Amino acid sequence: MGSEYDNNVVDDKEKEAVVLGLDGGTTSTICVCIPLRLTVSDDDDHVPPVLGRAVAGCSNHNSVGETLARETLKQVMMEALSNSGAKPSAVKAVCLGVSGVNHPKDQEQILDWLREIFPRHVKLYVQNDAVAALASGSMGKLHGCVLIAGTGSIAYGCSKDGKEARAAGGGPILGDWGSGYGIAAQALTAVVRAHDGRGPHTMLKDSILKSLSLPSPDELIGWTYADPSWARIAALVPLVISCAEAGDGVANQILDDAVAELALTVKAVIRRLGLCGEDGNGQFPIVLVGGVLVANKNWDIGQKVIDSLMKTYPGAIPVRPKVEPAVGAALLACNFLMREKERNGVK
Amino acid sequence: MGSEYDNNVVDDKEKEAVVLGLDGGTTSTICVCIPLRLTVSDDDDHVPPVLGRAVAGCSNHNSVGETLARETLKQVMMEALSNSGAKPSAVKAVCLGVSGVNHPKDQEQILDWLREIFPRHVKLYVQNDAVAALASGSMGKLHGCVLIAGTGSIAYGCSKDGKEARAAGGGPILGDWGSGYGIAAQALTAVVRAHDGRGPHTMLKDSILKSLSLPSPDELIGWTYADPSWARIAALVPLVISCAEAGDGVANQILDDAVAELALTVKAVIRRLGLCGEDGNGQFPIVLVGGVLVANKNWDIGQKVIDSLMKTYPGAIPVRPKVEPAVGAALLACNFLMREKERNGVK
Repeated sequence: MGSEYDNNVVDDKEKEAVVLGLDGGTTSTICVCIPLRLTVSDDDDHVPPVLGRAVAGCSNHNSVGETLARETLKQVMMEALSNSGAKPSAVKAVCLGVSGVNHPKDQEQILDWLREIFPRHVKLYVQNDAVAALASGSMGKLHGCVLIAGTGSIAYGCSKDGKEARAAGGGPILGDWGSGYGIAAQALTAVVRAHDGRGPHTMLKDSILKSLSLPSPDELIGWTYADPSWARIAALVPLVISCAEAGDGVANQILDDAVAELALTVKAVIRRLGLCGEDGNGQFPIVLVGGVLVANKNWDIGQKVIDSLMKTYPGAIPVRPKVEPAVGAALLACNFLMREKERNGVK
Repeated sequence: MGSEYDNNVVDDKEKEAVVLGLDGGTTSTICVCIPLRLTVSDDDDHVPPVLGRAVAGCSNHNSVGETLARETLKQVMMEALSNSGAKPSAVKAVCLGVSGVNHPKDQEQILDWLREIFPRHVKLYVQNDAVAALASGSMGKLHGCVLIAGTGSIAYGCSKDGKEARAAGGGPILGDWGSGYGIAAQALTAVVRAHDGRGPHTMLKDSILKSLSLPSPDELIGWTYADPSWARIAALVPLVISCAEAGDGVANQILDDAVAELALTVKAVIRRLGLCGEDGNGQFPIVLVGGVLVANKNWDIGQKVIDSLMKTYPGAIPVRPKVEPAVGAALLACNFLMREKERNGVK
């Protein structure tokens, strides 16, 4: 990397220029490298080519600590760039959407790490992973609301005049009960309650014990505390869905509660931003992201959340993104850079 | 310590003999040394003299890991013995009531640790801390039910014919929602929900933020994950009680839910053991232990649990123990030893 670039001048080299977009969730971190695009196409469906892509583990500093988070971020970015075949000097901007960025302090800390990796002229942007997820549904434009329900859950929205709001995203202790972790923890609880007489019989007991190769619910305590990582527990969600599809009342109640919880989270953001307009019928996109919201055979959590939302906000337009959140982050990098260049008088 | 003792023979030295009782909870570990007592007094109110006492931190191997748990147990026992002025050779029996003992494997592991510390003739007993808590209310006799609600929660019961049952005690992931941790986690959740628009306004917000010196609920995420120890979060319970006493609806709902949850836990044990007899009116003690159940000014969680239980089981006799659970463990050591001697033909 050198200092030969002036970021106020667009020259031939711009054609080879690339940006990095990164999506850092609770379970994994994905980085992509795409060509820099300095015009927004009217065709919202234009999917940019991914030149390079790399995957690593969790980079949430709240979960894995600062040192490991930093190392993971650096490694996955370098790998995506290397896979793209682009020169390090071709990187014009980097946008990170990272879970665990809840506060300007978090943002500044990660910007400091990035500043040590990239030369001064590279533009750096750090956002909560929800912002990148919204951009993945809107192809880089920040308007509407996104709901992420993977291991954790969060809703984030942005109004046309740039106001932002979020709800949930605090992790299990602070009540993200519609998340994959939340659903699975409720299922584990239901097994223990059925076993000790506090709750009704449930098919979840045999299903979960068989899947974990445990002989009795008494062994669940040891299993849980051997490694209380959220992702390990959230991995039980497909079993809950299977039991619900097979007619288990307890599993159905857990999923119904999750739907209510997720819909409540989105509604809180819509209301605070006034996304639905004064008459309540205004149109706005609602982007659905994350493993919990992926369409399942019969029990489709994402569809049920949409059904609940549409009753209150008929103008909500559900969007299932065509690109992954990391590409959303990369498109954000392009758009942020474009806006800066416009402000500096370069079209 | 020597090998000069024959535990089948009661001689003059028996008069100086002592036992150790230990209560290892999620937050702290307490060990006491009391004189060996080989007869059960008809006077249930006889409180044994505590010759020595020592306090240490958490010894739950699920929480702090094996090495630290082991070190903590050893240290606190040696300190209590040293404080008593008794010779190490005077120790005849040791009974540990430790949270995190959920399985015969846990029991065997701790017995192995103890075997390395004490000579062969010292009798060693390892129980879940709930057993010691029950003994603290019944002065060493195992009959009835105990409810512990401190940082965690568990109900444990024992029928006259020696059948045992427990409910809850799995920690927060497995649904101990009436515990101190459970109550405080619900309160933190309520603050975040009030802030992001998912829940109603609550006095808990100002109360908790002021107590933690945090400027905004956004900072709670960082605070929570900086140190997610259960005890640190459970320490917020008095704030929830204050807000409930001041009329806050959200705080009152959290405490009402905790009462319902704790009563459900006890009822599951009573039902499984048939403690109430066939007509449902049989008498049995119900021992209340732990910070959450201590009588508070107006909002008395323990009393409300009792009120709920008495509606279903009018023969339940509430007991607030006169001695601490560590003394209960020591009395258990005496009783276990007495039974062994009786079996061996020595009165």
